[in-house]
Amino acid sequence: MSIRLIAFDADDTLWRTNALFDMTEQRFRDLLAPWAPGEALAAELLAAERRNLRLYGYGVKGFVLSMIETAVQVTEALVPSSVIGEILGMGHEMLDHPIEPLPGAEETLRALKPGRELVLITKGDLLHQEQKLARSGLGELFDAVEIVSEKTAATYRRVFDRHGVRPDEAVMVGDSVRSDILPAIEAGACGVHIPPPTVWAHEAAEPPLDSPLYARLDSIAELPAWVATRAPLQNAVKLPT
Amino acid sequence: MSIRLIAFDADDTLWRTNALFDMTEQRFRDLLAPWAPGEALAAELLAAERRNLRLYGYGVKGFVLSMIETAVQVTEALVPSSVIGEILGMGHEMLDHPIEPLPGAEETLRALKPGRELVLITKGDLLHQEQKLARSGLGELFDAVEIVSEKTAATYRRVFDRHGVRPDEAVMVGDSVRSDILPAIEAGACGVHIPPPTVWAHEAAEPPLDSPLYARLDSIAELPAWVATRAPLQNAVKLPT
Repeated sequence: MSIRLIAFDADDTLWRTNALFDMTEQRFRDLLAPWAPGEALAAELLAAERRNLRLYGYGVKGFVLSMIETAVQVTEALVPSSVIGEILGMGHEMLDHPIEPLPGAEETLRALKPGRELVLITKGDLLHQEQKLARSGLGELFDAVEIVSEKTAATYRRVFDRHGVRPDEAVMVGDSVRSDILPAIEAGACGVHIPPPTVWAHEAAEPPLDSPLYARLDSIAELPAWVATRAPLQNAVKLPT
Repeated sequence: MSIRLIAFDADDTLWRTNALFDMTEQRFRDLLAPWAPGEALAAELLAAERRNLRLYGYGVKGFVLSMIETAVQVTEALVPSSVIGEILGMGHEMLDHPIEPLPGAEETLRALKPGRELVLITKGDLLHQEQKLARSGLGELFDAVEIVSEKTAATYRRVFDRHGVRPDEAVMVGDSVRSDILPAIEAGACGVHIPPPTVWAHEAAEPPLDSPLYARLDSIAELPAWVATRAPLQNAVKLPT
């Protein structure tokens, strides 16, 4: 049995975006400091993001709308609208931010490409995710790009199915246990977890350390070696007895 | 030659959303009336939407962010943030609004479905478009749903290709000359134009009245009859001489 399809998460797997969210949230705290202490503000923002997830989905635009909502709420509408204008500007900067692939990301994709389908599976704003992929310079290395509103086991099964591979021929690589690893393993694929330096509270979950389908790497640069050891191992297991 | 694939636009083709945008913009004007006259405000809002299209794309979240930006701008940041809170609330209402298919939409899809692929091709926020389709009750009638960031001739060619049909076997049905009709015809498909009661200024364009691939209907309910007359006509033209 060989690995015929390798799917990758985008944000914080191929490039860093958490740092940009964290930096923007810090600026938001500084901006609102005259009205609300940082910790309380962060808690209100997370609550707003969770409350709005059903309507806004993932991505920068929803994050900006939740920041504005939080600013109005915690100040009881006393925040001057010049501050709202600054929050809008922070959103523009996030959406326009350059995208730098993580060290080893491009080399890894090039090494894995021969004989395999490489698919990008990502949540977030459709247009922004397309733009980030284009800016990253990695776009041409993928056979397909799937921008989805939610990552569930059904999402992964549908993608594998569309590409004509069985789940046990597929691997999902990502930084989020909750979105990338658990549902991909539930669908029957391997989940290769590359933990990020920081985790968004909404995405926090326990990794399935006991699952034979779970693997953990420190960097995307280690992926080609993992794939190389994985495939012969599986062949050996499948030899007729 | 038969019609093997019929693609539909969603907003203002299968259900009305322009009316909801218009109504929300009217509320926005009323809300800002103490600071800016309606006409000037509308012009500023349209300018903001156009300016932000590159970063925000289409959809309600970008519309709300552009309304907030306009409110801050036209009032020189004098608008109280309680008004910003009201604009956010209007956005929530838009995103949560029930979706009622246009008269005849469901019957048309059911009549056309046997033997043909029905595909939804729409711009906008990924999550919100999925939710609207689910709320409309029409979701199960489509073989595929393509939510795209921009509708160009290349977009249409890619969709036809993915479904294994030639452009001359495909029809695109929609309300927007600019997004649905011109690029589909450029791709080699028929464009069936069902003009809406009102047109968003950004989408306004001249219909290609002289193109043999252009057709214009008054209502989606007329589509099955058009398809029925179209197919034999094409067969007759294609008979060997």
